[in-house]
Amino acid sequence: MPLRQVETRVSAVVLLSGGLDSAVLAYELVQQGIPLTAFSMRYGQKHAKEIEAASRIAESLEMEHQIVDLSAIGIPLFGGSSLTDGGKVPRGHHEAAIQKSTVIPNRNMVMIALATSLAIQKRCTRVYFASHLGDREIYNDCRREFLDAMGKAMVLADDHRVQLHFPYCKMSKSEIARRGAFLKVPFSETWTCYEGGDEPCGKCGACRERNEALSVGQCV
Amino acid sequence: MPLRQVETRVSAVVLLSGGLDSAVLAYELVQQGIPLTAFSMRYGQKHAKEIEAASRIAESLEMEHQIVDLSAIGIPLFGGSSLTDGGKVPRGHHEAAIQKSTVIPNRNMVMIALATSLAIQKRCTRVYFASHLGDREIYNDCRREFLDAMGKAMVLADDHRVQLHFPYCKMSKSEIARRGAFLKVPFSETWTCYEGGDEPCGKCGACRERNEALSVGQCV
Repeated sequence: MPLRQVETRVSAVVLLSGGLDSAVLAYELVQQGIPLTAFSMRYGQKHAKEIEAASRIAESLEMEHQIVDLSAIGIPLFGGSSLTDGGKVPRGHHEAAIQKSTVIPNRNMVMIALATSLAIQKRCTRVYFASHLGDREIYNDCRREFLDAMGKAMVLADDHRVQLHFPYCKMSKSEIARRGAFLKVPFSETWTCYEGGDEPCGKCGACRERNEALSVGQCV
Repeated sequence: MPLRQVETRVSAVVLLSGGLDSAVLAYELVQQGIPLTAFSMRYGQKHAKEIEAASRIAESLEMEHQIVDLSAIGIPLFGGSSLTDGGKVPRGHHEAAIQKSTVIPNRNMVMIALATSLAIQKRCTRVYFASHLGDREIYNDCRREFLDAMGKAMVLADDHRVQLHFPYCKMSKSEIARRGAFLKVPFSETWTCYEGGDEPCGKCGACRERNEALSVGQCV
Protein backbone atom coordinates (compact mmCIF):
# COMPACT_ATOMS: atom_id res chain seq x y z
CA MET A 1 0.00 0.00 0.00
CA PRO A 2 1.67 3.27 -1.06
CA LEU A 3 1.79 6.21 1.32
CA ARG A 4 -1.42 8.02 0.51
CA GLN A 5 -1.50 11.77 0.19
CA VAL A 6 -3.85 13.32 2.75
CA GLU A 7 -4.86 16.93 3.15
CA THR A 8 -2.21 18.48 5.36
CA ARG A 9 -4.75 19.89 7.78
CA VAL A 10 -6.02 16.43 8.84
CA SER A 11 -4.88 15.35 12.30
CA ALA A 12 -6.57 13.00 14.69
CA VAL A 13 -7.07 11.53 18.12
CA VAL A 14 -7.21 7.73 17.99
CA LEU A 15 -8.90 5.74 20.74
CA LEU A 16 -6.24 3.23 21.72
CA SER A 17 -7.48 0.48 24.00
CA GLY A 18 -4.38 -1.66 23.86
CA GLY A 19 -6.25 -4.36 21.95
CA LEU A 20 -5.62 -5.63 18.44
CA ASP A 21 -8.16 -3.55 16.50
CA SER A 22 -7.16 -0.09 17.68
CA ALA A 23 -3.46 -0.99 17.33
CA VAL A 24 -4.01 -1.94 13.68
CA LEU A 25 -5.96 1.28 13.13
CA ALA A 26 -3.20 3.39 14.69
CA TYR A 27 -0.59 1.70 12.48
CA GLU A 28 -2.75 2.23 9.41
CA LEU A 29 -3.30 5.93 10.14
CA VAL A 30 0.40 6.52 10.76
CA GLN A 31 1.11 4.76 7.49
CA GLN A 32 -1.32 7.20 5.84
CA GLY A 33 0.67 10.09 7.25
CA ILE A 34 -1.99 11.40 9.62
CA PRO A 35 -0.53 13.07 12.73
CA LEU A 36 -2.00 11.21 15.72
CA THR A 37 -2.50 11.56 19.45
CA ALA A 38 -3.48 8.35 21.23
CA PHE A 39 -6.18 8.46 23.88
CA SER A 40 -6.91 5.80 26.50
CA MET A 41 -9.28 5.72 29.45
CA ARG A 42 -9.10 4.02 32.80
CA TYR A 43 -12.68 3.45 33.89
CA GLY A 44 -12.29 0.97 36.70
CA GLN A 45 -11.03 -2.07 34.78
CA LYS A 46 -9.99 -4.97 36.98
CA HIS A 47 -6.48 -4.85 35.52
CA ALA A 48 -4.12 -2.44 33.75
CA LYS A 49 -2.92 -4.86 31.07
CA GLU A 50 -4.76 -3.10 28.25
CA ILE A 51 -3.55 0.36 29.21
CA GLU A 52 0.02 -0.89 29.45
CA ALA A 53 -0.35 -2.41 26.00
CA ALA A 54 -1.75 0.87 24.67
CA SER A 55 1.32 2.67 26.02
CA ARG A 56 3.62 0.17 24.29
CA ILE A 57 1.81 0.63 20.96
CA ALA A 58 1.88 4.44 21.27
CA GLU A 59 5.58 4.25 22.08
CA SER A 60 6.31 1.97 19.13
CA LEU A 61 4.66 4.57 16.87
CA GLU A 62 6.37 7.45 18.71
CA MET A 63 3.07 9.21 19.31
CA GLU A 64 1.80 11.26 22.23
CA HIS A 65 -0.42 9.19 24.52
CA GLN A 66 -2.99 10.82 26.79
CA ILE A 67 -4.52 8.62 29.50
CA VAL A 68 -7.60 9.83 31.36
CA ASP A 69 -8.19 8.25 34.74
CA LEU A 70 -11.91 8.23 35.45
CA SER A 71 -11.41 6.19 38.60
CA ALA A 72 -10.37 9.51 40.19
CA ILE A 73 -13.56 11.49 39.51
CA GLY A 74 -15.30 10.61 42.72
CA ILE A 75 -18.30 8.50 41.69
CA PRO A 76 -18.44 5.06 40.08
CA LEU A 77 -20.06 5.37 36.65
CA PHE A 78 -19.23 1.99 35.16
CA GLY A 79 -20.06 -0.46 37.94
CA GLY A 80 -21.72 -3.84 37.56
CA SER A 81 -19.82 -5.13 34.53
CA SER A 82 -17.70 -8.28 34.82
CA LEU A 83 -14.86 -6.15 33.42
CA THR A 84 -15.08 -3.64 36.30
CA ASP A 85 -16.45 -4.46 39.75
CA GLY A 86 -18.98 -7.14 38.74
CA GLY A 87 -18.76 -10.93 38.86
CA LYS A 88 -16.48 -13.29 36.98
CA VAL A 89 -15.59 -12.82 33.32
CA PRO A 90 -17.60 -15.37 31.32
CA ARG A 91 -15.87 -18.20 29.46
CA GLY A 92 -17.13 -19.04 26.01
CA HIS A 93 -17.65 -17.59 22.58
CA HIS A 94 -17.89 -13.94 21.64
CA GLU A 95 -21.69 -13.98 21.42
CA ALA A 96 -24.26 -11.64 22.93
CA ALA A 97 -25.92 -14.20 25.24
CA ILE A 98 -22.64 -15.29 26.81
CA GLN A 99 -20.87 -11.91 26.83
CA LYS A 100 -23.71 -9.80 28.24
CA SER A 101 -21.95 -9.27 31.59
CA THR A 102 -18.94 -7.75 29.81
CA VAL A 103 -21.03 -4.79 28.63
CA ILE A 104 -19.90 -1.51 30.21
CA PRO A 105 -22.94 0.67 29.66
CA ASN A 106 -22.24 3.97 27.95
CA ARG A 107 -18.48 3.64 28.20
CA ASN A 108 -18.01 4.58 24.57
CA MET A 109 -20.11 7.75 24.78
CA VAL A 110 -17.98 9.00 27.67
CA MET A 111 -14.75 7.94 25.93
CA ILE A 112 -15.71 9.60 22.64
CA ALA A 113 -16.90 12.76 24.44
CA LEU A 114 -13.57 13.10 26.28
CA ALA A 115 -11.59 12.32 23.11
CA THR A 116 -13.58 15.03 21.32
CA SER A 117 -12.56 17.55 23.99
CA LEU A 118 -8.95 16.50 23.58
CA ALA A 119 -9.28 16.83 19.79
CA ILE A 120 -10.68 20.36 20.16
CA GLN A 121 -7.91 21.34 22.58
CA LYS A 122 -5.28 20.05 20.14
CA ARG A 123 -7.12 21.41 17.06
CA CYS A 124 -7.37 17.89 15.60
CA THR A 125 -10.02 17.40 12.95
CA ARG A 126 -10.93 13.77 13.60
CA VAL A 127 -11.47 11.13 16.28
CA TYR A 128 -10.90 7.52 15.17
CA PHE A 129 -12.60 4.55 16.81
CA ALA A 130 -11.83 0.93 15.82
CA SER A 131 -15.16 -0.77 16.51
CA HIS A 132 -15.77 -3.67 14.12
CA LEU A 133 -18.49 -5.97 12.84
CA GLY A 134 -18.09 -8.51 15.65
CA ASP A 135 -18.72 -5.87 18.34
CA ARG A 136 -22.06 -5.01 16.84
CA GLU A 137 -24.17 -7.82 18.26
CA ILE A 138 -22.91 -7.50 21.83
CA TYR A 139 -22.21 -3.82 22.36
CA ASN A 140 -24.91 -1.24 21.53
CA ASP A 141 -22.35 1.55 21.73
CA CYS A 142 -20.22 0.01 18.98
CA ARG A 143 -23.07 0.11 16.47
CA ARG A 144 -23.11 2.35 13.44
CA GLU A 145 -26.42 4.00 14.46
CA PHE A 146 -24.98 5.05 17.81
CA LEU A 147 -21.72 6.23 16.27
CA ASP A 148 -23.57 8.19 13.57
CA ALA A 149 -25.54 10.04 16.26
CA MET A 150 -22.38 10.78 18.26
CA GLY A 151 -20.63 11.93 15.09
CA LYS A 152 -23.48 14.33 14.41
CA ALA A 153 -23.34 15.70 17.96
CA MET A 154 -19.56 16.16 17.61
CA VAL A 155 -19.71 18.40 14.56
CA LEU A 156 -22.44 20.46 16.20
CA ALA A 157 -20.75 20.80 19.60
CA ASP A 158 -18.28 23.54 18.73
CA ASP A 159 -17.21 25.88 15.92
CA HIS A 160 -14.12 23.69 15.63
CA ARG A 161 -15.82 20.71 14.04
CA VAL A 162 -14.45 17.29 14.91
CA GLN A 163 -15.49 14.30 12.80
CA LEU A 164 -15.91 10.78 14.15
CA HIS A 165 -14.41 8.09 11.91
CA PHE A 166 -14.97 4.36 12.44
CA PRO A 167 -13.51 2.79 9.32
CA TYR A 168 -13.62 -0.83 10.59
CA CYS A 169 -17.33 -0.93 11.36
CA LYS A 170 -18.04 -3.20 8.40
CA MET A 171 -14.90 -5.31 8.76
CA SER A 172 -14.56 -8.60 10.60
CA LYS A 173 -11.82 -9.04 13.17
CA SER A 174 -10.03 -11.51 10.90
CA GLU A 175 -9.91 -8.88 8.14
CA ILE A 176 -8.46 -6.41 10.65
CA ALA A 177 -5.90 -9.02 11.73
CA ARG A 178 -4.92 -9.58 8.11
CA ARG A 179 -4.48 -5.86 7.59
CA GLY A 180 -2.43 -5.70 10.79
CA ALA A 181 -0.14 -8.49 9.61
CA PHE A 182 0.42 -6.62 6.34
CA LEU A 183 1.26 -3.44 8.30
CA LYS A 184 3.61 -5.41 10.58
CA VAL A 185 1.69 -4.52 13.74
CA PRO A 186 3.47 -6.13 16.70
CA PHE A 187 0.49 -8.25 17.81
CA SER A 188 2.43 -9.61 20.78
CA GLU A 189 2.53 -6.10 22.28
CA THR A 190 -1.28 -5.82 22.25
CA TRP A 191 -3.57 -7.17 24.98
CA THR A 192 -7.06 -8.51 24.30
CA CYS A 193 -7.83 -10.90 27.19
CA TYR A 194 -10.59 -9.83 29.58
CA GLU A 195 -8.65 -11.41 32.47
CA GLY A 196 -5.53 -9.79 33.89
CA GLY A 197 -3.20 -12.80 34.22
CA ASP A 198 0.46 -12.98 33.26
CA GLU A 199 -0.56 -14.61 29.99
CA PRO A 200 -3.87 -14.38 28.06
CA CYS A 201 -6.32 -16.95 29.47
CA GLY A 202 -7.33 -18.24 26.03
CA LYS A 203 -10.82 -19.02 27.33
CA CYS A 204 -12.70 -15.72 27.62
CA GLY A 205 -14.73 -14.41 24.68
CA ALA A 206 -12.11 -11.81 23.81
CA CYS A 207 -9.28 -14.38 23.66
CA ARG A 208 -11.36 -16.79 21.58
CA GLU A 209 -12.37 -14.10 19.11
CA ARG A 210 -8.78 -12.81 18.83
CA ASN A 211 -7.27 -16.24 18.33
CA GLU A 212 -9.89 -17.13 15.76
CA ALA A 213 -9.25 -13.85 13.92
CA LEU A 214 -5.51 -14.40 13.88
CA SER A 215 -6.00 -17.93 12.67
CA VAL A 216 -8.60 -17.10 9.96
CA GLY A 217 -6.56 -14.04 8.98
CA GLN A 218 -3.58 -16.41 8.57
CA CYS A 219 -1.50 -14.26 10.92
CA VAL A 220 -0.21 -17.18 13.02
CA MET B 1 -50.14 24.48 39.26
CA PRO B 2 -51.54 21.18 40.54
CA LEU B 3 -49.25 18.25 41.26
CA ARG B 4 -49.25 16.42 37.95
CA GLN B 5 -49.51 12.66 37.80
CA VAL B 6 -46.51 11.10 36.09
CA GLU B 7 -45.83 7.49 35.21
CA THR B 8 -44.34 5.96 38.33
CA ARG B 9 -41.36 4.55 36.46
CA VAL B 10 -40.06 8.00 35.47
CA SER B 11 -36.99 9.10 37.40
CA ALA B 12 -34.27 11.47 36.33
CA VAL B 13 -30.83 12.94 36.67
CA VAL B 14 -30.92 16.74 36.49
CA LEU B 15 -27.85 18.73 35.51
CA LEU B 16 -27.55 21.26 38.31
CA SER B 17 -25.03 24.01 37.65
CA GLY B 18 -25.94 26.15 40.64
CA GLY B 19 -27.34 28.84 38.36
CA LEU B 20 -30.88 30.11 38.11
CA ASP B 21 -32.16 28.02 35.18
CA SER B 22 -31.24 24.57 36.45
CA ALA B 23 -32.49 25.46 39.95
CA VAL B 24 -35.90 26.40 38.55
CA LEU B 25 -35.95 23.20 36.52
CA ALA B 26 -35.11 21.08 39.57
CA TYR B 27 -37.88 22.77 41.57
CA GLU B 28 -40.33 22.23 38.72
CA LEU B 29 -39.48 18.52 38.38
CA VAL B 30 -39.77 17.95 42.13
CA GLN B 31 -43.12 19.70 42.01
CA GLN B 32 -44.13 17.25 39.26
CA GLY B 33 -43.24 14.37 41.55
CA ILE B 34 -40.28 13.06 39.54
CA PRO B 35 -37.61 11.41 41.72
CA LEU B 36 -34.38 13.27 41.01
CA THR B 37 -30.64 12.93 41.42
CA ALA B 38 -28.69 16.13 40.92
CA PHE B 39 -25.46 16.04 38.92
CA SER B 40 -22.74 18.70 38.85
CA MET B 41 -19.32 18.78 37.27
CA ARG B 42 -16.10 20.49 38.23
CA TYR B 43 -14.17 21.06 35.03
CA GLY B 44 -11.55 23.53 36.11
CA GLN B 45 -13.73 26.56 36.83
CA LYS B 46 -11.86 29.49 38.37
CA HIS B 47 -14.11 29.35 41.43
CA ALA B 48 -16.40 26.94 43.29
CA LYS B 49 -19.29 29.37 43.80
CA GLU B 50 -21.58 27.60 41.32
CA ILE B 51 -20.95 24.14 42.74
CA GLU B 52 -21.58 25.40 46.27
CA ALA B 53 -24.85 26.92 45.06
CA ALA B 54 -25.79 23.63 43.39
CA SER B 55 -25.22 21.83 46.69
CA ARG B 56 -27.47 24.33 48.51
CA ILE B 57 -30.25 23.88 45.94
CA ALA B 58 -29.96 20.07 46.10
CA GLU B 59 -30.06 20.27 49.89
CA SER B 60 -33.11 22.53 49.88
CA LEU B 61 -34.90 19.92 47.74
CA GLU B 62 -33.52 17.05 49.83
CA MET B 63 -32.13 15.30 46.79
CA GLU B 64 -29.00 13.26 46.27
CA HIS B 65 -26.24 15.32 44.68
CA GLN B 66 -23.40 13.70 42.74
CA ILE B 67 -20.41 15.87 41.89
CA VAL B 68 -17.87 14.66 39.35
CA ASP B 69 -14.45 16.26 39.61
CA LEU B 70 -12.85 16.28 36.17
CA SER B 71 -9.92 18.34 37.41
CA ALA B 72 -8.62 15.03 38.81
CA ILE B 73 -8.50 13.04 35.56
CA GLY B 74 -4.96 13.91 34.66
CA ILE B 75 -5.23 16.01 31.49
CA PRO B 76 -6.78 19.45 30.95
CA LEU B 77 -9.71 19.12 28.55
CA PHE B 78 -11.36 22.50 28.99
CA GLY B 79 -8.47 24.95 28.87
CA GLY B 80 -8.44 28.31 27.15
CA SER B 81 -11.84 29.62 28.26
CA SER B 82 -12.07 32.77 30.37
CA LEU B 83 -14.11 30.65 32.80
CA THR B 84 -11.28 28.13 33.28
CA ASP B 85 -7.59 28.95 32.79
CA GLY B 86 -7.95 31.62 30.10
CA GLY B 87 -7.90 35.42 30.31
CA LYS B 88 -10.28 37.79 32.07
CA VAL B 89 -14.04 37.30 32.06
CA PRO B 90 -15.50 39.86 29.62
CA ARG B 91 -17.72 42.68 30.85
CA GLY B 92 -20.75 43.48 28.78
CA HIS B 93 -23.95 42.05 27.43
CA HIS B 94 -24.82 38.38 26.98
CA GLU B 95 -24.10 38.41 23.24
CA ALA B 96 -22.00 36.08 21.13
CA ALA B 97 -19.38 38.64 20.05
CA ILE B 98 -18.66 39.74 23.62
CA GLN B 99 -19.05 36.39 25.35
CA LYS B 100 -17.00 34.26 22.94
CA SER B 101 -14.18 33.76 25.46
CA THR B 102 -16.64 32.22 27.96
CA VAL B 103 -17.28 29.26 25.64
CA ILE B 104 -16.01 26.00 27.13
CA PRO B 105 -15.80 23.81 24.05
CA ASN B 106 -17.63 20.52 24.32
CA ARG B 107 -18.30 20.84 28.03
CA ASN B 108 -21.93 19.90 27.60
CA MET B 109 -21.21 16.73 25.64
CA VAL B 110 -18.93 15.49 28.39
CA MET B 111 -21.40 16.54 31.09
CA ILE B 112 -24.36 14.87 29.37
CA ALA B 113 -22.32 11.71 28.67
CA LEU B 114 -21.34 11.38 32.34
CA ALA B 115 -24.89 12.16 33.49
CA THR B 116 -26.15 9.44 31.13
CA SER B 117 -23.81 6.94 32.77
CA LEU B 118 -25.08 7.99 36.18
CA ALA B 119 -28.67 7.64 34.94
CA ILE B 120 -27.97 4.11 33.69
CA GLN B 121 -26.29 3.15 36.96
CA LYS B 122 -29.30 4.42 38.92
CA ARG B 123 -31.83 3.06 36.39
CA CYS B 124 -33.18 6.56 35.79
CA THR B 125 -35.11 7.05 32.57
CA ARG B 126 -34.27 10.68 31.83
CA VAL B 127 -31.56 13.32 31.95
CA TYR B 128 -32.76 16.94 32.23
CA PHE B 129 -30.78 19.93 30.97
CA ALA B 130 -31.94 23.52 31.47
CA SER B 131 -30.46 25.22 28.40
CA HIS B 132 -32.62 28.12 27.23
CA LEU B 133 -33.19 30.40 24.27
CA GLY B 134 -30.58 32.95 25.34
CA ASP B 135 -27.82 30.33 25.39
CA ARG B 136 -28.45 29.46 21.79
CA GLU B 137 -26.57 32.27 20.09
CA ILE B 138 -23.41 31.97 22.17
CA TYR B 139 -23.05 28.28 22.98
CA ASN B 140 -23.21 25.69 20.17
CA ASP B 141 -23.64 22.90 22.70
CA CYS B 142 -26.83 24.45 24.10
CA ARG B 143 -28.58 24.33 20.73
CA ARG B 144 -31.49 22.08 19.95
CA GLU B 145 -29.69 20.43 16.98
CA PHE B 146 -26.80 19.39 19.20
CA LEU B 147 -29.09 18.21 22.00
CA ASP B 148 -31.24 16.25 19.55
CA ALA B 149 -28.15 14.40 18.29
CA MET B 150 -26.99 13.67 21.85
CA GLY B 151 -30.48 12.50 22.77
CA LYS B 152 -30.45 10.10 19.84
CA ALA B 153 -27.03 8.74 20.86
CA MET B 154 -28.29 8.29 24.43
CA VAL B 155 -31.22 6.04 23.55
CA LEU B 156 -28.95 3.97 21.30
CA ALA B 157 -26.06 3.65 23.77
CA ASP B 158 -27.51 0.91 25.96
CA ASP B 159 -30.48 -1.44 26.32
CA HIS B 160 -31.50 0.76 29.26
CA ARG B 161 -32.66 3.73 27.22
CA VAL B 162 -32.16 7.17 28.74
CA GLN B 163 -33.95 10.14 27.22
CA LEU B 164 -32.55 13.66 27.13
CA HIS B 165 -35.09 16.36 28.04
CA PHE B 166 -34.44 20.09 27.61
CA PRO B 167 -37.82 21.67 28.26
CA TYR B 168 -36.57 25.28 28.47
CA CYS B 169 -34.91 25.38 25.05
CA LYS B 170 -37.62 27.63 23.63
CA MET B 171 -38.03 29.75 26.77
CA SER B 172 -36.32 33.04 27.53
CA LYS B 173 -34.50 33.48 30.81
CA SER B 174 -37.15 35.96 31.98
CA GLU B 175 -39.85 33.32 31.44
CA ILE B 176 -37.77 30.87 33.47
CA ALA B 177 -37.34 33.48 36.20
CA ARG B 178 -41.08 34.05 36.28
CA ARG B 179 -41.69 30.32 36.59
CA GLY B 180 -39.09 30.16 39.35
CA ALA B 181 -40.78 32.95 41.28
CA PHE B 182 -44.08 31.07 41.04
CA LEU B 183 -42.38 27.90 42.34
CA LYS B 184 -40.75 29.87 45.17
CA VAL B 185 -37.23 29.01 44.07
CA PRO B 186 -34.77 30.62 46.51
CA PHE B 187 -32.99 32.75 43.89
CA SER B 188 -30.57 34.11 46.49
CA GLU B 189 -29.13 30.60 46.95
CA THR B 190 -28.25 30.32 43.25
CA TRP B 191 -25.04 31.69 41.68
CA THR B 192 -24.85 33.00 38.13
CA CYS B 193 -21.88 35.40 38.10
CA TYR B 194 -18.89 34.31 35.99
CA GLU B 195 -16.57 35.90 38.56
CA GLY B 196 -15.93 34.30 41.94
CA GLY B 197 -16.18 37.30 44.28
CA ASP B 198 -18.00 37.49 47.59
CA GLU B 199 -20.92 39.12 45.81
CA PRO B 200 -21.99 38.87 42.13
CA CYS B 201 -20.04 41.44 40.08
CA GLY B 202 -23.14 42.71 38.26
CA LYS B 203 -21.04 43.48 35.19
CA CYS B 204 -20.29 40.19 33.45
CA GLY B 205 -22.63 38.88 30.77
CA ALA B 206 -24.11 36.28 33.11
CA CYS B 207 -24.95 38.86 35.80
CA ARG B 208 -26.45 41.24 33.28
CA GLU B 209 -28.61 38.55 31.71
CA ARG B 210 -29.74 37.27 35.12
CA ASN B 211 -30.59 40.70 36.46
CA GLU B 212 -32.47 41.59 33.29
CA ALA B 213 -34.40 38.31 33.46
CA LEU B 214 -35.35 38.85 37.11
CA SER B 215 -36.40 42.38 36.31
CA VAL B 216 -38.39 41.54 33.15
CA GLY B 217 -39.83 38.48 34.89
CA GLN B 218 -40.94 40.85 37.66
CA CYS B 219 -39.18 38.74 40.27
CA VAL B 220 -37.42 41.63 42.01
